[in-house]
Amino acid sequence: MEIPPFQRIAVVGAGLIGGSVLLAGARRGLAAEFSCWSRSETSRRLLADLQVATVHARVEDCVRGADLVVVATPVDRIEETFAAIAPALAPGALVTDAGSVKVAILRAAARLPASVTFVGAHPMAGSEKAGAAHASAELYAGRACFITPTGAEPRAAVDRVTAFWRGLGCRTSECTAEHHDEIVAAISHVPHAAASALMLAVSDQPGFRVDAAGSGLRDATRIAAGEENLWLGILLANAPHVVAGLRSVEARVAELRGAVERGDAAAVNRLLAEARVARQSLDRPA
Amino acid sequence: MEIPPFQRIAVVGAGLIGGSVLLAGARRGLAAEFSCWSRSETSRRLLADLQVATVHARVEDCVRGADLVVVATPVDRIEETFAAIAPALAPGALVTDAGSVKVAILRAAARLPASVTFVGAHPMAGSEKAGAAHASAELYAGRACFITPTGAEPRAAVDRVTAFWRGLGCRTSECTAEHHDEIVAAISHVPHAAASALMLAVSDQPGFRVDAAGSGLRDATRIAAGEENLWLGILLANAPHVVAGLRSVEARVAELRGAVERGDAAAVNRLLAEARVARQSLDRPA
Repeated sequence: MEIPPFQRIAVVGAGLIGGSVLLAGARRGLAAEFSCWSRSETSRRLLADLQVATVHARVEDCVRGADLVVVATPVDRIEETFAAIAPALAPGALVTDAGSVKVAILRAAARLPASVTFVGAHPMAGSEKAGAAHASAELYAGRACFITPTGAEPRAAVDRVTAFWRGLGCRTSECTAEHHDEIVAAISHVPHAAASALMLAVSDQPGFRVDAAGSGLRDATRIAAGEENLWLGILLANAPHVVAGLRSVEARVAELRGAVERGDAAAVNRLLAEARVARQSLDRPA
Repeated sequence: MEIPPFQRIAVVGAGLIGGSVLLAGARRGLAAEFSCWSRSETSRRLLADLQVATVHARVEDCVRGADLVVVATPVDRIEETFAAIAPALAPGALVTDAGSVKVAILRAAARLPASVTFVGAHPMAGSEKAGAAHASAELYAGRACFITPTGAEPRAAVDRVTAFWRGLGCRTSECTAEHHDEIVAAISHVPHAAASALMLAVSDQPGFRVDAAGSGLRDATRIAAGEENLWLGILLANAPHVVAGLRSVEARVAELRGAVERGDAAAVNRLLAEARVARQSLDRPA
C-alpha cells in the first residue's frame, strides 16, 4: 500500500510508545514535520534532544494544524486527553491512538469534535521499561497492530490510518473494538495479571530465595515488572474479559493442584501435555 | 577449592543434564575417563558421536569400576536406577545425582549398598529442550547447585562431590533435603505448574489467537513447553510444597481478580506495585 504523506504528525503523550512513533515516523519519512507533547518535563527535554519533533509544553499547541494526531497517553487518561485537544484540532484531521483497550477508548472518542475522524489502533508493542528514554525506531517493526473502525468512518480515513501504522513497520489487521478487547484480554491482559499474581504467590512461600531464582521464574514473571499505573488502567478498562480470564486461571490452577494432591499421575500428565502442546503452538510460524 | 581427580566418572541417564555433565567434565578434565549409559538407542548413538565417553547399553557395565557415579535419570526413575546399579558399584564409590527433588531421592538412596556414599545434588540448570542433542559444556557455568548431605556421610565425601559440581562450573551451597524441596517448590516447581495452568486458561479464552500472541505471553508460558514426563515426576515427588504453593497462586489470582471485579483501583494498584517490586528484586545482583 502506498503511504499517503502527512504534512504534520502530532504525538500526544510521548513516552515509550509515542516516542517510538516519532523515531520510526521520522526515520521512515511519514510526514514533513512532527510535533509532540509530554506531561513530564524530563521527557520533554529528552524528546528535544532527539531532534525529530517540535516539543510542546501545552497539549493544544502540539496538535494545532496537525493532519494526523496520535494519542499515546495511558489508557485511563485518554478521555481527558481527547477533551484537552478537542478545541485545537484542525477540521478534517485524523486522530488515532495506541491504547491497549478499544471499547472504552471508542466511547471516550465522543469527546472529539465531529469535524475530525477517529480510527482506533493498538500496536502490539511495548516493554516493561516505560518512558521516552526507551523509545526505539524499530519498536513497531514486524509487530501486529489492530485497527478497530466502527464502520461509520469514511473508508479513506481508515485506509490512511492503516497506512500510517504499516508505515511504522506494523502488520495490521482489522476487527471490531469488542473483538479486539476479547483477544487482548486472552493474550496480554490475563497473562499480565496472572504473572503478577504468580510473583506475589512465589514471594509468599517460606522457601522463596531470590538468589536461587533461575531463568524459568524470571521469564514467567518478567511482565510483572511493568508499571502498575499503566496496567491498572488497562485491567480496569477491560474488566469483564479480564475477570473471566482470571477465573479460568483460578480453575486451571485448582485443577492441576487437585491432581497433584490426589497423586493422580494420569491427570497431571494430561494437563501438562495439553499445556505443552498449546505452548508449542505459539512458536510455530503462523 | 582444588578438584580431586577422579579415575572414572560414570553418567547414568545421559540426556540434557547427563550429556552436559559429560561435555563439561571432559572439557574441564575432571576425570581420566568417562563412561555413560542411556536408555534410548538414539541417545547412545549421539553420545558415541561426541567421543567423550565409553557408551554402554547395559547400565551395570557403565558404573562398574567408576569412582564417581552421576545419576541423571528422571526423578520418577531414580529409585529403579539405584536398584539397577547397586550390584555393580565399586566399594568406596561416590554416588551423586542431579534430581530436582531431594527428600524422595534420599529415601530412594536406601537401595544403594552400604559400601558406597551417596551425596545428593541439584544443579539449577536445564531447558525446555530435553535430550543429549541439546547438551552443552557450558550448561552449568555460573549456575546455582544445591548439595544436600544428611550429616551422616564422611565430610571428605561431601567435599569431593561439592568439588565435582564446582568443577563443572556451578556455584554450590549446602542445605538439608527438606529445605531444598521447599526452596525449589517456590522458585521452580510452582512457577512451572502455574505457567502450564496459565497456558491452558489462555487457550480456553474465546479471544485466544495464536498469531496475535506477543513476547509477554510467550515468556510467561515458556517453561510450560517442558517435557510432561519429567515434570510429572517432579511435581508428584514434591507434592506437599507444590500443593501449598499452588493454593497461594489461586488465592493471589482470586485477590487480584476480585479487586478488578469491584473496580477497586487502590487494591489493583497496590497488588501490581507489590508484584513489580518483588519481580525487580529478581534482577538485582545478589
